[in-house]
Amino acid sequence: MGPVRDVCVIGLGLIGGSVLRAAVAAGRTAWGASESTVDAEAAAADGYDAGSDVAAALRRAAANDALVVLAVPLTAVDAVLRLVAEHAPGCLLTDVTSVKGPVRDAVRRSAPDARFAGGHPMAGTAESGWKAGTPELFSGAAWVVCVEDDTDLSAWREAAMLALDSGAHVVPLRADAHDETVARISHLPHLLAAVLATVGAQGGPLAAALAAGSFSDGTRVAGSRPELVRAMTEGNRAALLPVLDEALGLLGAARGSLASTGGLAATVNAGHDALRSLTEHRAAPRASVTLDLGAPDAREGLLALGERGGRLTALDGETLTGEVA
Amino acid sequence: MGPVRDVCVIGLGLIGGSVLRAAVAAGRTAWGASESTVDAEAAAADGYDAGSDVAAALRRAAANDALVVLAVPLTAVDAVLRLVAEHAPGCLLTDVTSVKGPVRDAVRRSAPDARFAGGHPMAGTAESGWKAGTPELFSGAAWVVCVEDDTDLSAWREAAMLALDSGAHVVPLRADAHDETVARISHLPHLLAAVLATVGAQGGPLAAALAAGSFSDGTRVAGSRPELVRAMTEGNRAALLPVLDEALGLLGAARGSLASTGGLAATVNAGHDALRSLTEHRAAPRASVTLDLGAPDAREGLLALGERGGRLTALDGETLTGEVA
Repeated sequence: MGPVRDVCVIGLGLIGGSVLRAAVAAGRTAWGASESTVDAEAAAADGYDAGSDVAAALRRAAANDALVVLAVPLTAVDAVLRLVAEHAPGCLLTDVTSVKGPVRDAVRRSAPDARFAGGHPMAGTAESGWKAGTPELFSGAAWVVCVEDDTDLSAWREAAMLALDSGAHVVPLRADAHDETVARISHLPHLLAAVLATVGAQGGPLAAALAAGSFSDGTRVAGSRPELVRAMTEGNRAALLPVLDEALGLLGAARGSLASTGGLAATVNAGHDALRSLTEHRAAPRASVTLDLGAPDAREGLLALGERGGRLTALDGETLTGEVA
Repeated sequence: MGPVRDVCVIGLGLIGGSVLRAAVAAGRTAWGASESTVDAEAAAADGYDAGSDVAAALRRAAANDALVVLAVPLTAVDAVLRLVAEHAPGCLLTDVTSVKGPVRDAVRRSAPDARFAGGHPMAGTAESGWKAGTPELFSGAAWVVCVEDDTDLSAWREAAMLALDSGAHVVPLRADAHDETVARISHLPHLLAAVLATVGAQGGPLAAALAAGSFSDGTRVAGSRPELVRAMTEGNRAALLPVLDEALGLLGAARGSLASTGGLAATVNAGHDALRSLTEHRAAPRASVTLDLGAPDAREGLLALGERGGRLTALDGETLTGEVA
């Protein structure tokens, strides 16, 4: 087992604040910085090693070869990466942003010397800011850690270790596969919920009086903070557009079939079968797997596992263990 | 207070079987008949007055001036109405089908002498058949009882009394208002859930591995029995088509905006505002109201209440009491 790295978290909102707490709870030396003095002061008041001087936090990371965690909104990533390039150019770097292709491209552009592996812990709440964070936020969650052809496996290892230390399981994926999948299972649901809520409200007080389970379920995430929903959907534009087109195509086909033959069998049966196949996959028995991060084909092994829906649950030295259906 | 009517239920599946149980539990004399011998025998085995001779059940209803409740699938309504016209032509008649315009038209066509007020108890489970029913199925549910310009108010009164006896509250509405509203808050959610499940499953095992709350919520009703979803959506074709077009228009606008400007503010903000307005309406303080069923403007009073999202919770003689925001 290698050394336990120090952790430097840039950005102390819900996710970054929870990463800092989780790292400290796991026994790591960890510090944070945020340009939001509200979050920085709240973190310091809670006894964490936190301040508002991002450059100083990064210089300390460089001096200690710490893992730097970018936990700022996508729109602020480029600016922070320029600080990384200035103050900790060769650092071990990961991030916790909800889209992975744009961050990968930004790192290549703005901090090309960083040893980088992107990450996305798939957890959150409707709240935001330091105050909303907890050390247990990632417990039981999937945490994607990206693998590209040029990914530094030492950086990948450190990002995965942080995820595991936080109670999450690791899903290794290419950034593009991540972005397409979250477009399907997270971003499209948010847009459909918004559309459904809007169409429902056109029914006025009567709609409110008669709406029951199917409407409540289908609109629940329309209650999320609009700026968070916009950040993740707009930030994933390239992957979301073709997924939106799939949904429009299917809904248009349903409309056409209802108008012409009066039938909705194709739409309804396909949806029912699809949900069953997903449910069966989640319930399928899983086999244990072991991967050697030091093997020459480690990248291929990681990606094959992730693409099959597998997960990694422990890392001991260079040996990863996990499970796959 | 008028006489407590006997109740004759035709169709003993989930809804009809629950109506029969609820009527008996309320102290009514009630009997049922179903062409499904499985349901009829199961009802009889549970100690209910039930058989498979629909004509005999209807003749008994005619002899006792009972309230006849049609609880058969929409596709079987015309055939049963012809039996009503033959064996109990002037009976008090209601139904519990999920669309109201088509049943209203069928009654005018096939059983024009019946004293009819359509109904729709907005309750159900994923299961079907007599075995799935309970006397409490309608407890706390909305039960729409339709009011048209030609609705016989004695039939409306009997249908409302049955709903109240079953533990539901009554929402008085025109059939067309009902059908448009359920298209918005029930049928569209089912179609969007089917589309979302289908798009999600295109993401394969990886989608299953990463899907969390927004996807589970948005696809839950895709697990409903396809034949039930088809029956209600296809049966409401006329009202559902324009609602589907609204959804397609909004989703298409989102797609266009994302592709051109990259922004989704209009879509996301509209959905958030719509959900909040619906939630606020449901939480709004309600005032008590009283209506006199014997008043010359009783129909107008009922419709005004229903259209404002109001509900009726008790009926004593000709006096209805309820609440509205």
